[in-house]
Amino acid sequence: MAYNLLKGKKGIISGALDEKSIAWKIALKAKEEGATFTLTNAPIAMRMGQINKLAEQCGAEIIPADATSVEDIEKLYTRSMEVLGGKVDFVLHSIGMSPNVRKGRSYGDLNYEWFLKSIDISALSFHKMLQVAEKLDAINEWGSVVGLSYIASQRTFPDYSDMAQAKAVLESIARSYGYRYGKLKKVRVNTVSQSPTKTTAGTGVGGFDAFFDYADKMSPLGNATAEECADYVITLFSDFTRKVTMQNLYHDGGFSSSGISEEIVEKMKQ
Amino acid sequence: MAYNLLKGKKGIISGALDEKSIAWKIALKAKEEGATFTLTNAPIAMRMGQINKLAEQCGAEIIPADATSVEDIEKLYTRSMEVLGGKVDFVLHSIGMSPNVRKGRSYGDLNYEWFLKSIDISALSFHKMLQVAEKLDAINEWGSVVGLSYIASQRTFPDYSDMAQAKAVLESIARSYGYRYGKLKKVRVNTVSQSPTKTTAGTGVGGFDAFFDYADKMSPLGNATAEECADYVITLFSDFTRKVTMQNLYHDGGFSSSGISEEIVEKMKQ
Amino acid sequence: MAYNLLKGKKGIISGALDEKSIAWKIALKAKEEGATFTLTNAPIAMRMGQINKLAEQCGAEIIPADATSVEDIEKLYTRSMEVLGGKVDFVLHSIGMSPNVRKGRSYGDLNYEWFLKSIDISALSFHKMLQVAEKLDAINEWGSVVGLSYIASQRTFPDYSDMAQAKAVLESIARSYGYRYGKLKKVRVNTVSQSPTKTTAGTGVGGFDAFFDYADKMSPLGNATAEECADYVITLFSDFTRKVTMQNLYHDGGFSSSGISEEIVEKMKQ
Amino acid sequence: MAYNLLKGKKGIISGALDEKSIAWKIALKAKEEGATFTLTNAPIAMRMGQINKLAEQCGAEIIPADATSVEDIEKLYTRSMEVLGGKVDFVLHSIGMSPNVRKGRSYGDLNYEWFLKSIDISALSFHKMLQVAEKLDAINEWGSVVGLSYIASQRTFPDYSDMAQAKAVLESIARSYGYRYGKLKKVRVNTVSQSPTKTTAGTGVGGFDAFFDYADKMSPLGNATAEECADYVITLFSDFTRKVTMQNLYHDGGFSSSGISEEIVEKMKQ
Repeated sequence: MAYNLLKGKKGIISGALDEKSIAWKIALKAKEEGATFTLTNAPIAMRMGQINKLAEQCGAEIIPADATSVEDIEKLYTRSMEVLGGKVDFVLHSIGMSPNVRKGRSYGDLNYEWFLKSIDISALSFHKMLQVAEKLDAINEWGSVVGLSYIASQRTFPDYSDMAQAKAVLESIARSYGYRYGKLKKVRVNTVSQSPTKTTAGTGVGGFDAFFDYADKMSPLGNATAEECADYVITLFSDFTRKVTMQNLYHDGGFSSSGISEEIVEKMKQ
Repeated sequence: MAYNLLKGKKGIISGALDEKSIAWKIALKAKEEGATFTLTNAPIAMRMGQINKLAEQCGAEIIPADATSVEDIEKLYTRSMEVLGGKVDFVLHSIGMSPNVRKGRSYGDLNYEWFLKSIDISALSFHKMLQVAEKLDAINEWGSVVGLSYIASQRTFPDYSDMAQAKAVLESIARSYGYRYGKLKKVRVNTVSQSPTKTTAGTGVGGFDAFFDYADKMSPLGNATAEECADYVITLFSDFTRKVTMQNLYHDGGFSSSGISEEIVEKMKQ
Repeated sequence: MAYNLLKGKKGIISGALDEKSIAWKIALKAKEEGATFTLTNAPIAMRMGQINKLAEQCGAEIIPADATSVEDIEKLYTRSMEVLGGKVDFVLHSIGMSPNVRKGRSYGDLNYEWFLKSIDISALSFHKMLQVAEKLDAINEWGSVVGLSYIASQRTFPDYSDMAQAKAVLESIARSYGYRYGKLKKVRVNTVSQSPTKTTAGTGVGGFDAFFDYADKMSPLGNATAEECADYVITLFSDFTRKVTMQNLYHDGGFSSSGISEEIVEKMKQ
Repeated sequence: MAYNLLKGKKGIISGALDEKSIAWKIALKAKEEGATFTLTNAPIAMRMGQINKLAEQCGAEIIPADATSVEDIEKLYTRSMEVLGGKVDFVLHSIGMSPNVRKGRSYGDLNYEWFLKSIDISALSFHKMLQVAEKLDAINEWGSVVGLSYIASQRTFPDYSDMAQAKAVLESIARSYGYRYGKLKKVRVNTVSQSPTKTTAGTGVGGFDAFFDYADKMSPLGNATAEECADYVITLFSDFTRKVTMQNLYHDGGFSSSGISEEIVEKMKQ
């Protein structure tokens, strides 16, 4: 069922890799709710993924961009404004990668160049998308920018390694830039702290199944799915949430506020 | 502009006193978005207020109820289900009163019976609305319950006195009952921590104008209005936020994440 | 090994029931570190407990007081100042009891008079100890007041029931009164959020063993013991922490910041 | 007055630049409390500062080290263990610098290489000090590592710019490495979130006087001084706080829990 919640709104959606991606679901939902938008992803991700299929379904142009490149992001906004016929109303940041995690480096044996790369790709790219937008004046007043985060920014999940720091930076940028952009143009900036999600990226983290299961058992409503995350993000892009800003919003079935659950108690008794 | 976000949804809205009330705005918005609902308030508040006017505008029946009385709340749900033709999908709790604040008792000279009354009226009533609902099985699966809170639960605002404790209880009940009701019936329970709002109740707190002004200057988007709060609460009642539960959600123009603002810096320099 | 950290300091310690009590350990440690103090507990707890033994060991007078009675608390301070020869420097609040928990009422079937009793005994008593102290001017400048709390105030532990709300009130009072007393007399007020502890009171909560074990496996340093809590509280009474106030301080081996641990991952895989 | 709180303990103290430095005060206090330690700072800071004077007062060797260089940190630990005759018990990280702040770049015009430098110097150096320590097994069981932070990590202070992100990383590393080192060797890792302090580094931030004044007026106990911070950090190095880990501890006179204060209300009324 569609409500036209984003009717007339224009946007940019990053991070759709394949059908399991949260960004993919957000794109479909945004389309359904009346938005027009462009899609972007890193050139390498685009070769691996099936983003063309999504672009077709959504009638959206794909604009490849390396999220660490200011130049690429400038092109992304410029071309998006051309294609969409004006400034955008929403931006989704769904970008994250840690070479240390990917290559299985222990947290006690981090490669520090890779650490800075994790930050650059997964968090600094968020600042770049905001700073470039501001410089190009590419976001309409009362626009909404959302980054996808994870609770590892606030509590330790050993396998998450330096992505914990990257997400901490992401959330911090949402506050700092949210302040700035709010004052300047009434643009709001938030992060959504989503349940562990069975995406191609997510399941790459070691021990994923165990902590997916754990989170599911800890959350009274169960883990939130990618589709449900898409629903939620749509509300943040809509005009119903204009005064929500600089927040890290848990979309997690209650996980973040659960100290223990009956299922975990049962598990402990075994 | 209406989106039918609550089409087919039934609910109960408490706390509408007059046109300035947040609950009043929520009722109007819920109506606009397609919901049907009943209205409730304390018998005494109903005599003072203009709720009949709202009831007419919304085609809603008014069911008087003392929110501290389990019996009254039972009648509220029973009658609501009769009137609405079935279980409800959403419940708004917007109830708060502190005799200590009202009668100007200093926080160092609290009347302790009144303290317990503040808790009973402003917070325990939330538990009663949940416990009675559960016992009567009065809320549909995936229903949504929202209580209105204020950041004084987390940080000290001297004039807020024992209402700080009442709001801390309210938010704690949202977590505890959110866990329980989530497991039982997929019902979510959240609180919205709203900017200081120029309602009849709000402006009764001492020094209101100064901290309204302060909050407005600290919030990059300015204070959220009652209308904007209504918009936000509608998203929480809608099906777009099904996995958000046990949260205290700041709807405050960024106040809660602002450490200082340029306006306050200017003020300090004077 | 003793350091004379509390040399010359006078205090009041509530809540020592038997050798397992955290308050008992705090009393012993405070004695060891050079403090003099009075002991207090509810008349009924005193009949059950072995507080006389502790009093002897510490050379401390016992002053029975019902912590819900303002009159009793007045006597407690007045007599303490007589015995100790002046105002006190520190106060420990270690008082908590929920009739709903004790009598096994489900959180969906709370007795509301008992709920208010839980609040009154476990949290409002903290306010009374502060308000009476202020009125009698019974605490020296730079004095320190500590209440013992538990993380259930912030996250849901189903078996903790309405004690979650009581602890939320306790922590909120620490902030509100900490503000007030700080301004008035430089007195600081904090709560310590302690690991689940095998005290006579603690082990009365249903499912205690399971969540003790869970917390222990989640905490990289393991659960904090009562003795370790005593050590920590001593630092808060000492002059080394004069600017720490209005805080809820986790003393929990890292539990509060752990999202998952390797042990729990192992457990989940079984 | 001294208590011998750190008697027999060995440590490393970084970041003492001149008499106003928090690290300087911590060194003096640690000496007074019976510790022996080495001092370290960046070669450039050492030329500017008066660290030799401090070294003399403390009988401490100075070991220059660039905190971004793993090699230098290896030498720091190796030499410290030689000088001190064994593993260390405590480590202070008090290192921070942002080229963007120093050169007055606006947050909407950040230089991204400098951003990564801010992270590298101010936060990644903390990880390096921990990872190198672990590899060299340079910290005794039950050792304590403290980093100095600032509330800008959690709330926005516009002039703090990308140091907000650096401090967010610092606090996140404390949690992640605190988990790891806790499990491995019972070593605890915390950050202290200190009031704005009139150090040579601190006062370099734009608008410092205004927000120092603001924080002072918001904090019921006033801003915490460098000396008071030293006192507090000593407790964290002592054996009295063995189960406190992965925490960000506010040492701020109550600032972080104050929503507004009477002084600010007065200021707003002007």
